[in-house]
Amino acid sequence: MTRPTITAFDWVPDFAQGQVRDLRVRWALEEVGQPYDVRYLSQGQQKAPPHRACQPFGQVPTYEHGDLTLFESGAIVLHIAESHPGLLPDDPNARARAIEWMFAALNTVEPPIMDHAIATLFEADKPWSRPRLPAIMARIDERLGEVAARLGDREWLDGDAFTAGDLLMAAVLRILRGESALEKHATLADYVARAEDRPAFKRAYGAQMAGFTGNPPPEIAAWLKKNTQAMGEMR
Amino acid sequence: MTRPTITAFDWVPDFAQGQVRDLRVRWALEEVGQPYDVRYLSQGQQKAPPHRACQPFGQVPTYEHGDLTLFESGAIVLHIAESHPGLLPDDPNARARAIEWMFAALNTVEPPIMDHAIATLFEADKPWSRPRLPAIMARIDERLGEVAARLGDREWLDGDAFTAGDLLMAAVLRILRGESALEKHATLADYVARAEDRPAFKRAYGAQMAGFTGNPPPEIAAWLKKNTQAMGEMR
Ligand SMILES: N[C@@H](CCC(=O)N[C@@H](CS)C(=O)NCC(=O)O)C(=O)O
Ligand SMILES: N[C@@H](CCC(=O)N[C@@H](CS)C(=O)NCC(=O)O)C(=O)O
Repeated sequence: MTRPTITAFDWVPDFAQGQVRDLRVRWALEEVGQPYDVRYLSQGQQKAPPHRACQPFGQVPTYEHGDLTLFESGAIVLHIAESHPGLLPDDPNARARAIEWMFAALNTVEPPIMDHAIATLFEADKPWSRPRLPAIMARIDERLGEVAARLGDREWLDGDAFTAGDLLMAAVLRILRGESALEKHATLADYVARAEDRPAFKRAYGAQMAGFTGNPPPEIAAWLKKNTQAMGEMR
Repeated sequence: MTRPTITAFDWVPDFAQGQVRDLRVRWALEEVGQPYDVRYLSQGQQKAPPHRACQPFGQVPTYEHGDLTLFESGAIVLHIAESHPGLLPDDPNARARAIEWMFAALNTVEPPIMDHAIATLFEADKPWSRPRLPAIMARIDERLGEVAARLGDREWLDGDAFTAGDLLMAAVLRILRGESALEKHATLADYVARAEDRPAFKRAYGAQMAGFTGNPPPEIAAWLKKNTQAMGEMR
């Protein structure tokens, strides 16, 4: 059996290290025990034609296995979960609910969290970012409260078994790692800690971090330097 | 065989009519020829405990069939596509790619489009919305250009066959119906028109529109009235 190959970056800014979306794919592969290879891209290469041919939006990750090439970390995680035991329950209804949580993570919970990342990182220096922040935080708080209410005192979203839905929900929530927005929902902070404590997560995380051996191109280094103060002020 | 029951609203503001997410589920059900029942909620009911028990975020749609209850329109569309022929190719690789486009629609293309909806509708009266608009439009334009480039002159995203990926991508793109942001990408405007021309879409759209027999609660009517001018100025 050949190993799949995924793509990842050889360098990202500190704030993104441990958060790049190939982590979700590495984590799924580790959960099911499937070894994989990584093709590293330097910053900029993701927008060049060869990578665009695999990923129309010029992003990572991608997944190649035999004659199948996939993009979208959600779709890749689902494909891995469907091809190996371990991430989706056997019971058809429980399986459908695990997939429901995958979509909830990516289409309901992640958008306001990414909005926060845009406002506090990529648009930290824009005059509209600070005034918007309370509205963004309120939207995040509503969603997190709703996830916490549903989780209750269960270990995972649908009960005892960790699924691909938990993998994506924890991956989305941990974008807020260390932020009061997450910490104030103690059950969710614990849920994320429980997910991060899984051996498969730790291996995936370690592998992503170990892959950062490159350097930023000059224009990204300059942008980072220029915006560091603005980013700090948004915290 | 019993029919599934979905939830929908008995009233939404004009700007949302024909766009509420139960449309995606109705459309999938029409594509596969599965009759369904609808339980209508009036505005406010979606946040009450009985509906929250089915939909933790207090939203529509939900889907109930036998002892399965699902939320998240993406997950429901996938469940329908997996349970009936017609929306997913038989070839396993083509099937995985159709699912990839479902995630691309919901996790890559929809977020900036919903951001635009927030800025021009729900936060039209906020001082930060107008200055942000160019940045939002640039992000949308980049994504739409990328989808258009990948679509090329094909009929559907993965070739000749309409899939659940096209259903969700068209549903997401048509949020921008009539907006120059979409119209400037002629192939995408045509793609949306092609999707909307499908008999199943027309039936689904007609059914959603016919379901709006209710009235807004006073506070929503008042909010709408107060914000109409701001919404108009954001166009
Ligand atoms: N919805 C996509 C998002 C992928 C994504 O946002 N990738 C980021 C890294 S986390 C990226 O490649 N950014 C670089 C760029 O856009 O230039 C997925 O889940 O795969
Ligand atoms: N990610 C969810 C989003 C559902 C959603 O946004 N529903 C809206 C209607 S389109 C809603 O119910 N809004 C009412 C509310 O939030 O109070 C899905 O795709 O099912």
